[in-house]
Amino acid sequence: MVFAQLCAAMAVLIVGSVALDSIKTQTEEHPDLLGGSASYAAVSASFFQPVDLVGIVGSDFPEHHLDLFRERQIDLTGLQIVEGKTFRWAGEYEADMNKRRTLHTELNVFESFSPKLPPAYRSASVILLGNIGPELQNHVLDQSERPEFVVADTMDLWITIAQPELIKLLGRIDLLVLNDSEARQLTEEENLIKAAKKILDLGPKYVAIKKGEHGCLLLSRTEFFSCGAYPLEVVKDPTGAGDAFAGGFTGYLASLNRSRFGFTDLKRAVVHGTILASFCVESFSLYRLTKLTKGELQDRYDRFRDMSHYDEESRAEFRI
Amino acid sequence: MVFAQLCAAMAVLIVGSVALDSIKTQTEEHPDLLGGSASYAAVSASFFQPVDLVGIVGSDFPEHHLDLFRERQIDLTGLQIVEGKTFRWAGEYEADMNKRRTLHTELNVFESFSPKLPPAYRSASVILLGNIGPELQNHVLDQSERPEFVVADTMDLWITIAQPELIKLLGRIDLLVLNDSEARQLTEEENLIKAAKKILDLGPKYVAIKKGEHGCLLLSRTEFFSCGAYPLEVVKDPTGAGDAFAGGFTGYLASLNRSRFGFTDLKRAVVHGTILASFCVESFSLYRLTKLTKGELQDRYDRFRDMSHYDEESRAEFRI
Repeated sequence: MVFAQLCAAMAVLIVGSVALDSIKTQTEEHPDLLGGSASYAAVSASFFQPVDLVGIVGSDFPEHHLDLFRERQIDLTGLQIVEGKTFRWAGEYEADMNKRRTLHTELNVFESFSPKLPPAYRSASVILLGNIGPELQNHVLDQSERPEFVVADTMDLWITIAQPELIKLLGRIDLLVLNDSEARQLTEEENLIKAAKKILDLGPKYVAIKKGEHGCLLLSRTEFFSCGAYPLEVVKDPTGAGDAFAGGFTGYLASLNRSRFGFTDLKRAVVHGTILASFCVESFSLYRLTKLTKGELQDRYDRFRDMSHYDEESRAEFRI
Repeated sequence: MVFAQLCAAMAVLIVGSVALDSIKTQTEEHPDLLGGSASYAAVSASFFQPVDLVGIVGSDFPEHHLDLFRERQIDLTGLQIVEGKTFRWAGEYEADMNKRRTLHTELNVFESFSPKLPPAYRSASVILLGNIGPELQNHVLDQSERPEFVVADTMDLWITIAQPELIKLLGRIDLLVLNDSEARQLTEEENLIKAAKKILDLGPKYVAIKKGEHGCLLLSRTEFFSCGAYPLEVVKDPTGAGDAFAGGFTGYLASLNRSRFGFTDLKRAVVHGTILASFCVESFSLYRLTKLTKGELQDRYDRFRDMSHYDEESRAEFRI
């Protein structure tokens, strides 16, 4: 019972970038927004479980962004605040919001980032290694003590310039999350089901392939789950959707307070991640997520279930 | 009771092309295959309900293809066999099987096709207007007596060259099935949910948007269903997948023997169509579908349900 209470209080550990983004769409343009993989993931995960955040920002990082994290019970002991400027990214979306281009990137203090886990974080049971270089992701695992479940995100850049470190990481994690073009790039395989199996051969027990407006696939060696995206008529800013997905996924999993997870747990984690991502893209930065209520989340979860399920008991009927 | 029995025996009416296809993929090439929208749709629908087929072939059409239809209880009273050559189509698929190009098209006897419903077909309750010109689809509806549910398929060509006839058709049908690029072309709307709503504004109560390997969306004005594709590692030939989907969808619906269908019926029809399409692409032409057993269908339906459902009762839990 004491153990169960300890478990219930155990925060999910999230490592990644914390950034100031400048984002341009066909209709709006906003500078200096709170962004970065860890920011989106941590706020999303915080709907399910307390979060320990590991990242780095510069001395220019606005205090009100720190307050935003604190208000959501995100522990900042692991957030390094160092002299200099915060990581900055600027991007522009085309009319087809699946297409974006980077306008500029300033690594700033992120260039010298070496994630360091405070002692209290090292026993984290569930870890999300947000999208940062795989050598940093490996370095986090070097400092952690036997986590139960490790999720890692990655991107095309690391597949191109840091593949050996990424391959090493794949042998140490439970689930890799990446998008469809990245899965094809990593495996040189056009068919996504074959690509997923090749990724599983590299180590992880599970792979989640994000397909933007087409939803997400989750695979193990023997199981498969296809999850649609929540239907939205207006997408204001897709930035951070993948991180919100990964954060919602990992936060939900951590909230189960178990040491082992079955495929059904992971399916539901995908759905919770999908719901968080759907809210994320309804505004720029974290504006929508930070205003989100439990009632809105529950309502969208229920609606999405109605949209996904079709048959309470299997009752196919074939004539011949 | 007598009425119920009459309904149970009522065939589904399927109108479309019957063709001889020559198909080239990256690994195989096959000439003179049985093809055409009505062929794929009729064989798929025949797993659920007897089929009345309306189409046209030339005097060169092989007798064994007619036998194949007859063996599946597909009534050929409405199949015109006229002097001349059967419609022929040749196409080639790229390594990415979502991309194909037409090598050549010979309309032959199809050029003068005017679908004519035999008297016994005119009272059909459920109709599938396969992918042929919308003026021919309208002509079929002119001859039919108050059908309960009409499904129509279309393609980019008709959106380009016969849009007024297509718009007229949309006011007369219950469900339009088309693929994502066609939905965007017809509505000049990038967002698929918005595109679907614009299509519903043109008349049909429902629209099904096919997305190939990403599955299918079904929408009414107030309801939404997202259905993944059945995961396949090997796709031998995607030809006819959309027609097999439409045929499975319509055949399942007809088999319910009802005069009204709810959204849950339509969701299940989408799933049955998806299952039929998944078998279709496992071989060239109708080879896989004609060898398919009831046990294989039931097994894939059950597996697909496990892959799609995630929560027997809604049990989301959000902390804050």
